Amino acid sequence: MAESWATSPSGQALGIDLHIEPTGSGLRRGLTDALREAVRGGRLAPGTRLPSSRTLAADLGIARNTVADAYADLVAEGWLTARQGSGTRVAERPVEAPRPAPAPGRRAAGHLLHDLHPGTPDLASFPRAEWLKASRRALTNAPNEALGYGDPRGRPELRTALAAYLSRARGVHAHPDHIVICAGFVHALKLLGEVLRRRGDRDIAVETYGLDAHWDVLTHSGLRTHPLPVDQLGTDTSELDAWTSKRGTSRRAHGPSPAGSSPIGPSPTGPSHVGAVLLTPAHQFPLGVPLHPDRRATTVDWARRTGGLIIEDDYDGEFRYDRQPVGALQGLDPDRVAYLGTASKSLAPGLRLGWMVLPAALTREVIEVKGTIDWSCGVLDQLTLAEFLNSGAYDRHLRSARLRYRRRRDQLVAALAEHAPSVHATGIAAGLHAVLQLPPGTEQSVVRAAAWQRLGVAGLSSFRHEDAAADATARDALVVGYGTPPDHAWSSTLDALCRVLP
Amino acid sequence: MAESWATSPSGQALGIDLHIEPTGSGLRRGLTDALREAVRGGRLAPGTRLPSSRTLAADLGIARNTVADAYADLVAEGWLTARQGSGTRVAERPVEAPRPAPAPGRRAAGHLLHDLHPGTPDLASFPRAEWLKASRRALTNAPNEALGYGDPRGRPELRTALAAYLSRARGVHAHPDHIVICAGFVHALKLLGEVLRRRGDRDIAVETYGLDAHWDVLTHSGLRTHPLPVDQLGTDTSELDAWTSKRGTSRRAHGPSPAGSSPIGPSPTGPSHVGAVLLTPAHQFPLGVPLHPDRRATTVDWARRTGGLIIEDDYDGEFRYDRQPVGALQGLDPDRVAYLGTASKSLAPGLRLGWMVLPAALTREVIEVKGTIDWSCGVLDQLTLAEFLNSGAYDRHLRSARLRYRRRRDQLVAALAEHAPSVHATGIAAGLHAVLQLPPGTEQSVVRAAAWQRLGVAGLSSFRHEDAAADATARDALVVGYGTPPDHAWSSTLDALCRVLP
Repeated sequence: MAESWATSPSGQALGIDLHIEPTGSGLRRGLTDALREAVRGGRLAPGTRLPSSRTLAADLGIARNTVADAYADLVAEGWLTARQGSGTRVAERPVEAPRPAPAPGRRAAGHLLHDLHPGTPDLASFPRAEWLKASRRALTNAPNEALGYGDPRGRPELRTALAAYLSRARGVHAHPDHIVICAGFVHALKLLGEVLRRRGDRDIAVETYGLDAHWDVLTHSGLRTHPLPVDQLGTDTSELDAWTSKRGTSRRAHGPSPAGSSPIGPSPTGPSHVGAVLLTPAHQFPLGVPLHPDRRATTVDWARRTGGLIIEDDYDGEFRYDRQPVGALQGLDPDRVAYLGTASKSLAPGLRLGWMVLPAALTREVIEVKGTIDWSCGVLDQLTLAEFLNSGAYDRHLRSARLRYRRRRDQLVAALAEHAPSVHATGIAAGLHAVLQLPPGTEQSVVRAAAWQRLGVAGLSSFRHEDAAADATARDALVVGYGTPPDHAWSSTLDALCRVLP
Repeated sequence: MAESWATSPSGQALGIDLHIEPTGSGLRRGLTDALREAVRGGRLAPGTRLPSSRTLAADLGIARNTVADAYADLVAEGWLTARQGSGTRVAERPVEAPRPAPAPGRRAAGHLLHDLHPGTPDLASFPRAEWLKASRRALTNAPNEALGYGDPRGRPELRTALAAYLSRARGVHAHPDHIVICAGFVHALKLLGEVLRRRGDRDIAVETYGLDAHWDVLTHSGLRTHPLPVDQLGTDTSELDAWTSKRGTSRRAHGPSPAGSSPIGPSPTGPSHVGAVLLTPAHQFPLGVPLHPDRRATTVDWARRTGGLIIEDDYDGEFRYDRQPVGALQGLDPDRVAYLGTASKSLAPGLRLGWMVLPAALTREVIEVKGTIDWSCGVLDQLTLAEFLNSGAYDRHLRSARLRYRRRRDQLVAALAEHAPSVHATGIAAGLHAVLQLPPGTEQSVVRAAAWQRLGVAGLSSFRHEDAAADATARDALVVGYGTPPDHAWSSTLDALCRVLP
């Protein structure tokens, strides 16, 4: 037995290290795994000749067929080779273990003592028990076909429930046929970006203040983003006309024209043709002002005249504390507005659930991009949210969240008045964040001081589009997400904020 | 009160139709909604002057402020206009209801009496009760941060559980850091297609038989798909070498060369450079053969020599009935293979849950495409699947599903022997579908006969790549998804199948 591998020291080590049990139904599997690991780990070098199945079986006290089967498995997988006259050998392919990748770059929220970054609701108040109840009812009642490959627009139960809710609560004119469920706002924006690009659009208007991540989605779709100015009346969309008429102008400019004539229309560095605009009409993010009624009308007029599309980001329209929320812009002209809503602020971002209410023609274009089957959105959360809406649990949750966030906002304003009288909260009493106007020139130092205290908070400048013209809105301010901390940490977070304010 | 609108016949109709209650806390909302609907529905025409808030309040017997607030809401939303000296009027913007879109084109499974289309497991056997239990445990134990914006690779709980499971059950070399959760196989393929396109790839090799939907995803990413032949040993990947070396050849061809020399290398209509290949090694879809060990080795060798990428679609690797499944190709070289798995066959497509096990460098590229935050996959199902795997419920479910599908396969083979002896099931005893070899020239007539009987079944030719060369594999056959029907319909479905076979 000098050639025996199983009784050699390394063979014994293999038997012990890998816990090969010589009995039991998992024997073949255990032996196969152990051998595979030995090859993978390099303990059995490439080219090594293995003992015959008879020898190894005798050594291990198991049936010969078990060993033969294990060898056959590993030959089939490519770990071993079996050649006539050469026996069974370890195959010539050294396999290296992959090295762990560094975790991708993320805001290191785990290292903060306090977090006031805007954009996330209080995750501790997610209604877990109610959600589980709804989920039980939803899954119990779901037809089998709901678990299969589904309609690209999402489950009809959820689209029907949303149509009723959005019409009632947000003044949206919604038919279930024109609602498309998606994995949150970013997914919706991605789909619309692809639709616009397929139409031949190259430019889209956005607000001067907003989220980089959203602009990046549009850029990735092949669109250039052009910022519109924002003031106390919301976003000034009057420039859209000039940006839209330019396509015609530019076409004329390329045709025969008197030599030396100067070009007509806006500056040559502006967009060539804007066919869509992305807006946050109910509560400008992050500035916090609603879009003035005259501007709502102007924007809808622009869309009608030019065939343009308004993309309405209604991210926190449910949260207004001083009065009933302003209805959605979409209600003014459902044929010109793509209304986008999300469960990320009202429930939790982790659900990855959002919805679009679309004009009829756009619904077809979005489905063309999304695919004839829904490849994106899990049905269980869709069915649960439908049940949550229909049972009234969603309204109950919103009412209690509204009370909690309103109290926080009031406490924030009161704390400012007491501890930092030079700082004022601007914007309407709504949403999950406030903009704190700082004395000129202090934003960067306040943000740095906060970082030293391990308090996470964002400066307004970080939400400013890089192509924005310098104007009066380029002011020093903090964007404070008062919705972010859990209840138990709220008052200490507020104290920490007051300590870093001038 | 001749001018009074509320007491006019149409005003009364409005009050009755819309169930305005003159008391209660929802009064303002009710009035606002009723007025909005009246404008939207055209009952209040554009330009119509509304009664003063005092008049309407008196008519309805409610507080004047309530009416003033409702008017203000509707002005803010753009439904009404309020101008000094002109009173409150209905705004000049007729709003049309969107027309319902036709449902997008789908296979009309609802009109079938029996469904044997492959690709869907028995949805009636989804383990609802077990899933709900796991979901309760998962959500109860989840940290709050799990509900926020998360790691683009997906929840660590699920990645850790999958690493252990895939290593144990499929011989995959998996580290949680290199697993990326996605919304099913199509989402994974989309991400990989984008990565390849960003690398500058324009061509990808696929199998001659497969799914149109998958090829379309790659095409949409900007890649041309080139079919490799498939025979009894699985997909023949030997052509890859020629397709890969061609880039070098073609570069040389563009440089100085003796005039009149004929080009070296494959035919000029072939791909210019193939950097990746999409395969179903465990169980070729739909033909049902496993990739031969020699070909596994050849393919990995190709990937190593050329820096190529193997995309391994392990869609049903858990389901083998005659022996332990062949381990994943990925185990042979984790640095060259992107392993793709899915819960769509083992649990249900509606979950939209899949996973990729990636080489380290590719993980970073995929994250660049997917985004620095997970915008795609809901956390609740991820946490539930992790719990399902860790608790052993997944293995239990698979074992019972394996028994059920195996029995169906055996019954199918027995029924063929008895009722259609000229038809043979080919491929290994595995998966959720079988290929039934038909007498030459009969495929189309059998599929048509099935359609007449409202039996859904697919002909093999519908899975054939349009660029595939005519060869011996272009045979007449049916692809029968015996996993698709629910248990109670199985035996009648089998009868229906036998009736249409020659």
